Amino acid sequence: MVLIAAIGPGPKSNAMPDFTLDPRLEADTVFVKTGPVSDFRLMNDARFPWLVLIPRATQAFSVDDVPAAQRASLMEEIVCAGNALKDVTGARKINWASLGNHVPQLHIHVIARFNDDPAWPKPVWGVGQVEPYPAGSIEAFAQRIADALP
Amino acid sequence: MVLIAAIGPGPKSNAMPDFTLDPRLEADTVFVKTGPVSDFRLMNDARFPWLVLIPRATQAFSVDDVPAAQRASLMEEIVCAGNALKDVTGARKINWASLGNHVPQLHIHVIARFNDDPAWPKPVWGVGQVEPYPAGSIEAFAQRIADALP
Repeated sequence: MVLIAAIGPGPKSNAMPDFTLDPRLEADTVFVKTGPVSDFRLMNDARFPWLVLIPRATQAFSVDDVPAAQRASLMEEIVCAGNALKDVTGARKINWASLGNHVPQLHIHVIARFNDDPAWPKPVWGVGQVEPYPAGSIEAFAQRIADALP
Repeated sequence: MVLIAAIGPGPKSNAMPDFTLDPRLEADTVFVKTGPVSDFRLMNDARFPWLVLIPRATQAFSVDDVPAAQRASLMEEIVCAGNALKDVTGARKINWASLGNHVPQLHIHVIARFNDDPAWPKPVWGVGQVEPYPAGSIEAFAQRIADALP
């Protein structure tokens, strides 16, 4: 820190700064796995098996902020996330979406849906109250999903 | 028809049957443009500039029913749809999603959002009552979007 201060900021670099996860996404989710483009995280809401994919592209607010060469991989991550949720939960239906009306950092929801879940057939956002997983159980569930991912 | 009947169904073909649009999607939208993978259609709800992309893959209920080789193009169609809506409406925010909890045929919503629209910051689905465009005006709006698409 002292050294950096002594050297000064130096010339502006084209290097991307490190990826920083939005604090609200960090608070609402636990880490599952690192994919080629995105971090996979699990929403801490036991009502819905719900992954959130956060592309590590710096300052991505919209999918077109992800480099074009990575967007095909992002689509495959969405497919893989849905298939892992199907494998682990037995779900037959997946919802996926990029909204970001509250949290601007680009993130893609991938959610297993059941016709007896508390929101069906509506979308899950804003329905009822979040029910955090019982203490200690979310890590085991996150691990099962990680194991089901390629 | 008579000839086919005379010949009989013959051996089972690997050819895909023609794509058929779900009648509910057809009733709720108007045609905008044909993309490489999907038909682009405009939702007849004047409250939200809202495209629906329907991949022409036969019997696609889920994104993994779209052939893998076409999924990268589908992602680019989502990006192009969002950019066209931004160009035409001045929106800075796009929501995109695949839900299909009501209509099983795979379709992807791409919606321009504004912080003074009737649903903001909630998702648009199920909010209030649909407001069809005034007679004759949806075709002109669809044409402006078609012109903004690549």
